[in-house]
Amino acid sequence: MISFPKPQVEQFFRTYALTNFAVSKDESRLVFNANLNGKMNLWALDLPGSFPYQFAHKDESCNFIKIDPENRFVLAGFDNDGDENYQIYALPAAGGLPEGLITGNPDEKYFFSHLSEDGNRVYYMTSEGNPNFLNTRVRDLDDDSDSLIHEGGTAPTYLAAVSDEEKAFVFTQSFANTYVTAFVKTEDGIRYVTPDKDKVHVVFNPVFTDEKTVHFITNFDSDDHYLAKYDLERDEFSKVLTVKKESITSIQWNKERQVFYMLTERGVTDALYSYSPADDSLTPLQLPVDTVDQIHTAKSGNLYVLGRSAAVPPNIFSSEEGSSWKSLTENRVLGVTEDDMVEPDVVHYTSFDGMEIEALLFRAKPENDNGHTIFWPHGGPQAAERKNFRAMFQSFLNRGYSVFAPNFRGSTGYGSEFVKLVEQDWGHGPRLDCVAGVEWLVANKITEPEKLFLVGGSYGGYMALLLHGRHPELFRAVIDIFGPSDLFTFVESVPPHWKPIMERWLGDPERDKERFIKDSPVTYLDGMTKPMLVIQGAKDPRVVKKESDQIVQKLRDKGREVEYLVLDDEGHGFSKKENEIKVIQTMLEFLEAHQA
Amino acid sequence: MISFPKPQVEQFFRTYALTNFAVSKDESRLVFNANLNGKMNLWALDLPGSFPYQFAHKDESCNFIKIDPENRFVLAGFDNDGDENYQIYALPAAGGLPEGLITGNPDEKYFFSHLSEDGNRVYYMTSEGNPNFLNTRVRDLDDDSDSLIHEGGTAPTYLAAVSDEEKAFVFTQSFANTYVTAFVKTEDGIRYVTPDKDKVHVVFNPVFTDEKTVHFITNFDSDDHYLAKYDLERDEFSKVLTVKKESITSIQWNKERQVFYMLTERGVTDALYSYSPADDSLTPLQLPVDTVDQIHTAKSGNLYVLGRSAAVPPNIFSSEEGSSWKSLTENRVLGVTEDDMVEPDVVHYTSFDGMEIEALLFRAKPENDNGHTIFWPHGGPQAAERKNFRAMFQSFLNRGYSVFAPNFRGSTGYGSEFVKLVEQDWGHGPRLDCVAGVEWLVANKITEPEKLFLVGGSYGGYMALLLHGRHPELFRAVIDIFGPSDLFTFVESVPPHWKPIMERWLGDPERDKERFIKDSPVTYLDGMTKPMLVIQGAKDPRVVKKESDQIVQKLRDKGREVEYLVLDDEGHGFSKKENEIKVIQTMLEFLEAHQA
Repeated sequence: MISFPKPQVEQFFRTYALTNFAVSKDESRLVFNANLNGKMNLWALDLPGSFPYQFAHKDESCNFIKIDPENRFVLAGFDNDGDENYQIYALPAAGGLPEGLITGNPDEKYFFSHLSEDGNRVYYMTSEGNPNFLNTRVRDLDDDSDSLIHEGGTAPTYLAAVSDEEKAFVFTQSFANTYVTAFVKTEDGIRYVTPDKDKVHVVFNPVFTDEKTVHFITNFDSDDHYLAKYDLERDEFSKVLTVKKESITSIQWNKERQVFYMLTERGVTDALYSYSPADDSLTPLQLPVDTVDQIHTAKSGNLYVLGRSAAVPPNIFSSEEGSSWKSLTENRVLGVTEDDMVEPDVVHYTSFDGMEIEALLFRAKPENDNGHTIFWPHGGPQAAERKNFRAMFQSFLNRGYSVFAPNFRGSTGYGSEFVKLVEQDWGHGPRLDCVAGVEWLVANKITEPEKLFLVGGSYGGYMALLLHGRHPELFRAVIDIFGPSDLFTFVESVPPHWKPIMERWLGDPERDKERFIKDSPVTYLDGMTKPMLVIQGAKDPRVVKKESDQIVQKLRDKGREVEYLVLDDEGHGFSKKENEIKVIQTMLEFLEAHQA
Repeated sequence: MISFPKPQVEQFFRTYALTNFAVSKDESRLVFNANLNGKMNLWALDLPGSFPYQFAHKDESCNFIKIDPENRFVLAGFDNDGDENYQIYALPAAGGLPEGLITGNPDEKYFFSHLSEDGNRVYYMTSEGNPNFLNTRVRDLDDDSDSLIHEGGTAPTYLAAVSDEEKAFVFTQSFANTYVTAFVKTEDGIRYVTPDKDKVHVVFNPVFTDEKTVHFITNFDSDDHYLAKYDLERDEFSKVLTVKKESITSIQWNKERQVFYMLTERGVTDALYSYSPADDSLTPLQLPVDTVDQIHTAKSGNLYVLGRSAAVPPNIFSSEEGSSWKSLTENRVLGVTEDDMVEPDVVHYTSFDGMEIEALLFRAKPENDNGHTIFWPHGGPQAAERKNFRAMFQSFLNRGYSVFAPNFRGSTGYGSEFVKLVEQDWGHGPRLDCVAGVEWLVANKITEPEKLFLVGGSYGGYMALLLHGRHPELFRAVIDIFGPSDLFTFVESVPPHWKPIMERWLGDPERDKERFIKDSPVTYLDGMTKPMLVIQGAKDPRVVKKESDQIVQKLRDKGREVEYLVLDDEGHGFSKKENEIKVIQTMLEFLEAHQA
């Protein structure tokens, strides 16, 4: 009979990105954002499940989808080639070409916040006139009037919740990823929802459960995130629910059923619960995947989840109250089953100062194993490498590389204090956690420096550059994907509304001059002796192209071997299928050319 | 509230081609060929209906899909950038990357014919060693042996049916589109299935209803196509069924139910019937569309149809025995409903010699109407313009052009004698039918020559060139899409296996020299005074690029206004979405620039 070769790397490229979705109020339609036809576009399908049809053509990334409760139109936000200057567009109910609704100068941002219950008023934040802190405005779709609701100050200020009667508003102010306060604004003025706004803590995902009560997630006075509430009448903060050893990451309020659907985080996976405040009962529910990107609860009680596992690409699932899940989409690796892919082991090791670090270890299958390992410091840095499908990882594994991804200090999922450890310390603790990770790999005979590659993107690219400069003996060759190379230039070039948070996150270039020098990869050019590949999106607004340009130029001036791939129409990520393929192929060729 | 503009032309580009499909024997899966992700690839969905997933990645046109009855593999044929040198590939049951199964020199053709009931033997025709007439071979997948079944001679010879026991074979021989004979080959030798092979007639779609009986469609001794059978034991031909005023165009035999499912043609639409030979009962069935591209009957009695209507893009539908149909795919015009599109009127007019000609008249909606009309002579020429969705037509209509498409003599759907009228008369009768069509349009005040554009592809491009050269006063400007410009060079450049049919179809360049001169567009260069756009695929194997190159060069030498668009990676048609868009946009810009 016909015999077939084992799956090829190219097959892993044939999944698609599926980033967000919306369900119409009557649950007749699901609209989602995916690069199913090669570029990011909106698609729809009629529920309870069927063949999808294209819903909007824009060929751009989309940051939100909101369906009018009366099904008269759909709102969506699009940027331009990844520049993250999202603006707000409207589509006819039948779909079509997005028409600008709340747009302006292409360099300005218009972030959607909220659509009123009757679908007639759009609340949004804009950089127009207030680039650092943002203004919040409301557009009345009936008469096209537009008015200021709140002028941001002190820190970037976001409208995070609107009461049904549109008389109370919750705003959050972001001083850092680990310091976000929230206040309620009513005609009576402004009141903070936590007892001490000056204490470092976070508040997120506020929801009005009634006109006088806001529920939200916070870590005020705690290492973990818990559910709390604020009573507007009594001006009273109170803890509502803590989930032991887990951090709550999102809440959805189902008004009809008076129930919260909550996601929690446990290291590299998520869990789902329903919680009834009336009788204080918490019920664990099944999830169809290891990690969840978005969850939606319908009036009917049906749940919709967009999520992934290490060997499952992003898909949207539905269920009746989290009982049995059904996949509404079929995003698959072409011709490859889960069994052909690699599930990671969750491993732990002790770092230089005794701290325990969790890591994912993907071991190449014996029949594919080429003896080499890829060390992957994740981006963020206040994020984590979790059990998420990555075509890149599975491509590496298919070619025989094992992959090791440590959640060094500063990663999320291990408590609030752990996350803060990267703040104003980008280059010491996290770097030594990585070094300890390499030592653990070697001690456990999983790899040796002669067979260890270093690959990272964004903060992970920064870490790859820094490790390369300071510990070149640990790695064979290095790939940096849009990593900052010089903290002095990086801190100057981030988007305006990021600037207020840079102080706590990274520090001040004048005050912390010595540390900035010590932690900037460019300081260690002499050490960067291993072959290197640098990849950059020309439109990247977070880590601008100059960061890569300058390190490439400086190394080439010294006669070092540096390949440089620039994607002209991409930002901080690769949204276009052909670009993604080009990036992975270039990486695979680089790795293959530099194998031991 | 938000108001939206009316649908834009770009929205019509967002449908996709959906050309063929296969259903697994157990009806667990549908595999189909579509450019859903921008290029032609195989997709699958799990039956009875769900979200599709990519099944094969090849980015090439596919001429057949065949699923192994045991679900061990899938066979499919792919060419290279539209060169029509199809070769046979195999895919794992789970899908993946097509592996060459029966392939060879890229210039050779390997046409799939039949897969044995047990899935172990593949029958196919190849140009290898017999470019004009083709050889038929069988590949045994168990031991990889490959043997000659039949050596083609006299005319291109195709294996059209294989008996269950694989002891009897029906071959057809194509002398012209209107002259196709068929014979049964067994160990006893060769016997023709119709009483007189030398009489001009056609035989097609033979099926073995048992080891001793072949049913087929023929027009032997008739103007219409009817169902006939041949009894191998008695060596006896007999008429089985005629459908009044309709021509049978395809039959599917459902062995389990002992029923034929038959498609018939009535001018511009199709009809569906079931026919039980046992009791000679014919039952009309519903169809979900006006025209059908492919039909499949499953053991269960379920029917699957790929079809289109004027305002419905190609979709696949299923039903239980033709009762109520359900669409398995959702190929739609982005954000445009059927109501926003134009259904054609079927009109009739009398030509120069009194012959009645049927035509489709698509009238631009009053709110879009720009006063101009496009005259569209179809390709083939032994084909017809039917109630088929064409993104091009609906784009024209959206921009305000009306479209007129006559089924001039030589068109199919109006009886066998009518089809023959274009043979050895490419340039006289059909051309005067077109001229009479223009006169009818003018007489009925639908258009005037100052506002009439001429657009055609393939034979329609030839006709556009010829009408332009001989009747320039009738048209404002002309678009020729891969039309032959010189019959002398055209007859020499067609693919080798077309050559045997050229004599009857077009004639002999030496014997018919005068007619070839009279009917070649290049003869009338002096008349071609109107602005012209010529479009050509560089890899076109039917009408080679030289046909367009030469007319463009000659006209430019004379100082005429000729735009020329060449698509490097296309053949006789535009399979890639970006190319299709480029072609339509170029046409629309040309038309707009030349409006009155």
